[in-house]
Amino acid sequence: MKLTEYSQSALAEREQVLSQQYAEYKQAKLNLDLTRGKPSIEQVALSDALDGILKGDYRLADGSDSRNYGGLDGIPEAKALAAELLEVDSSQVLIGGNSSLNLMYQYLDFAMNHGLDGKDSAWKHTGAKFICPVPGYDRHFSVCEALGIEMIAVPMTGNGPDMDKVEALVSSDSSIKGMWCVPKYSNPSGETYSAETVERIAALSAKAGEHFRIMWDNAYLIHDLSDQPDSLMNIMAACAKQNSQDSVFVTASTSKITFAGAGMSFAASSVANLKAFKAYLSAMTIGPDKINQLRHVRFFGDLNGVKAHMQKHAALIAPKFAKSLECLEPLADKGIATWSRPRGGYFISFDSHLGLAAEIIQLTGEAGVKLTPAGATAPYGKDPENKNLRLAPTYPSLAEVEQAMQIFALCAELASVRKLLEA
Amino acid sequence: MKLTEYSQSALAEREQVLSQQYAEYKQAKLNLDLTRGKPSIEQVALSDALDGILKGDYRLADGSDSRNYGGLDGIPEAKALAAELLEVDSSQVLIGGNSSLNLMYQYLDFAMNHGLDGKDSAWKHTGAKFICPVPGYDRHFSVCEALGIEMIAVPMTGNGPDMDKVEALVSSDSSIKGMWCVPKYSNPSGETYSAETVERIAALSAKAGEHFRIMWDNAYLIHDLSDQPDSLMNIMAACAKQNSQDSVFVTASTSKITFAGAGMSFAASSVANLKAFKAYLSAMTIGPDKINQLRHVRFFGDLNGVKAHMQKHAALIAPKFAKSLECLEPLADKGIATWSRPRGGYFISFDSHLGLAAEIIQLTGEAGVKLTPAGATAPYGKDPENKNLRLAPTYPSLAEVEQAMQIFALCAELASVRKLLEA
Repeated sequence: MKLTEYSQSALAEREQVLSQQYAEYKQAKLNLDLTRGKPSIEQVALSDALDGILKGDYRLADGSDSRNYGGLDGIPEAKALAAELLEVDSSQVLIGGNSSLNLMYQYLDFAMNHGLDGKDSAWKHTGAKFICPVPGYDRHFSVCEALGIEMIAVPMTGNGPDMDKVEALVSSDSSIKGMWCVPKYSNPSGETYSAETVERIAALSAKAGEHFRIMWDNAYLIHDLSDQPDSLMNIMAACAKQNSQDSVFVTASTSKITFAGAGMSFAASSVANLKAFKAYLSAMTIGPDKINQLRHVRFFGDLNGVKAHMQKHAALIAPKFAKSLECLEPLADKGIATWSRPRGGYFISFDSHLGLAAEIIQLTGEAGVKLTPAGATAPYGKDPENKNLRLAPTYPSLAEVEQAMQIFALCAELASVRKLLEA
Repeated sequence: MKLTEYSQSALAEREQVLSQQYAEYKQAKLNLDLTRGKPSIEQVALSDALDGILKGDYRLADGSDSRNYGGLDGIPEAKALAAELLEVDSSQVLIGGNSSLNLMYQYLDFAMNHGLDGKDSAWKHTGAKFICPVPGYDRHFSVCEALGIEMIAVPMTGNGPDMDKVEALVSSDSSIKGMWCVPKYSNPSGETYSAETVERIAALSAKAGEHFRIMWDNAYLIHDLSDQPDSLMNIMAACAKQNSQDSVFVTASTSKITFAGAGMSFAASSVANLKAFKAYLSAMTIGPDKINQLRHVRFFGDLNGVKAHMQKHAALIAPKFAKSLECLEPLADKGIATWSRPRGGYFISFDSHLGLAAEIIQLTGEAGVKLTPAGATAPYGKDPENKNLRLAPTYPSLAEVEQAMQIFALCAELASVRKLLEA
């Protein structure tokens, strides 16, 4: 029965029950953390063989020495592996350092301050706006803020961003210079962009002003929770059909495949785009860590090696997602919230229908369960409806996830009951 | 006897002898490279134990896990080691990725485009000029060019930059926002700044406009060729005496200690400076590769470990420098050139008194010996006197160094003789 259909006295009664449970949790002085999409200890341990895998053999297939200088855009072996993962040609690949976020920042700094096609093309001359599908990834929004790129929120639909809105915006304002996308198992909604969405995104640059760029953060490209993964249309292939390959900058990394923050990142784009970007990069670095690239290549071998490795991750985290959803199930008929049932990625996205995100975070925090701050999934940290919450169940143990999610569900209901009592 | 004192007929005779030797070298079709300061295969092999050194133990002393996210400015163990190396407090240290050049670029981008002390303080608002001691490091100059910082050349004296000139410039033009320094075994002159120079540099910010910064690239801080190393005054201590700690940004890396391009970089500055810089960095990265930091810490233990390791490097490269100087010795009484006799670092700096740098590079190139392009050691790649050449003897084998340097000495003399014949 929906809480909205409860009488005030029934609500008051329910409030008492929940408050008492809540008080008990509070007394337990727990310390649980669902804030960030971090792999667990067991997950990172899957890659422990990385250190030492070279066994003194630092030579690349082309005979060069990974221990010395040289190679602005990565070793050929790493490019080949990244090309397999991204389903592109290795000439369309660039290897970065330990952070794909860093590649994204650099690419947007390049576009904003240096110019994708010479100094005069720098976005700073006209100002730049970016379309930000919401809910989205807080660090994307931070990059825009740091670089002075204005953000325009567009809602997600379940099949990706609302493309009618996106197309209307892009067509009507040439200072919109690009768009953020997490196209598979999107952070945090978990949805995967439909083929139609991908095709419409590949067509955007024809409607947009000059030097428009799609930031295609394929962070969860192979991060499936089941053996029936979502299928994402290849954006580079979709762009090739429409001759818009220059308009997309694809990124991914092994941060949630091997070691978080000690893996390798990679990017894909047109050969022309990469050439221009490399000229920008050449002023600031000799190139990324080639030895770590070689370790990764030796560790995986090829795409099949990566896939087999990801099944081990899924075996560790799928039960945590299942348990989380199980804990949320009692809320299902209460009419106070909806949430995602992700088939991959790192998050459950939770929408409070009564606009109580901040209140729920406050309650759970006081009961020892840390959540991502309210508003984190929206540009400028401000969720106008105060509804979206991002839950990250991968890092804690299964028992901790269960406890944390039970408290979360309790707090979500308690906040709602109290809100309805006020009404 | 000086070539300038030769009669024209004696010059012509000498030209014939040298030309014949040169023709023989040319026929040998050699392929030797003295372009960049790269460690040799034997040098990088000194660090082969890095891969595998963790033996499955990825825990830090504070109990945290190097395999997971977190830590924008490095692990405490790495900070402690860097602090020992730089002779500062570990609170004044930040660990970067695999490239100190990247830290320098980022710091100057921060100052230029974002502002050392808030947006209004960004150098871009007034324009920025930098003092560049010449001869200097080409990649420093590239950073300035990429960021739109105008370069002003100031000559080196043997004790560091000409401080009378530097002080006069800084006092008279508040748009001079900083200065590059390679204070020990300077690239390429090999000189180490005297204590007086360091003290005067530490006093510069009092004479300069707001937000003035010394880029103190201590790339060769421990790269001694003998057991009687040069001694460099501690810039942070010198600044502390003058209350100018905010005016210096010190960088160094292990790139020429362990693996070139796969080591760790570090910076030192005032706590306030680092705090502001970290806020800038936080938008673009979760942090540098902690596992590689941990490898380095385990590999070295402490400063004594680094010192013992550097002695092995010296044993490998000191003979190459000695051989190079031996090959140049026949030029000593000819009055056509002078060169450095470095006690550390990676270069020999060679000045052609007749302004024949480009011609010498051309001649050696045609005989199969690649040298750094003429002008590389000056801002904008333009050496107005066409005199300075940078020789990097570390990478080739001792036999190759000997051959390359014999050819170089021959070409230097041949170019000079031909020039005098024209006169």
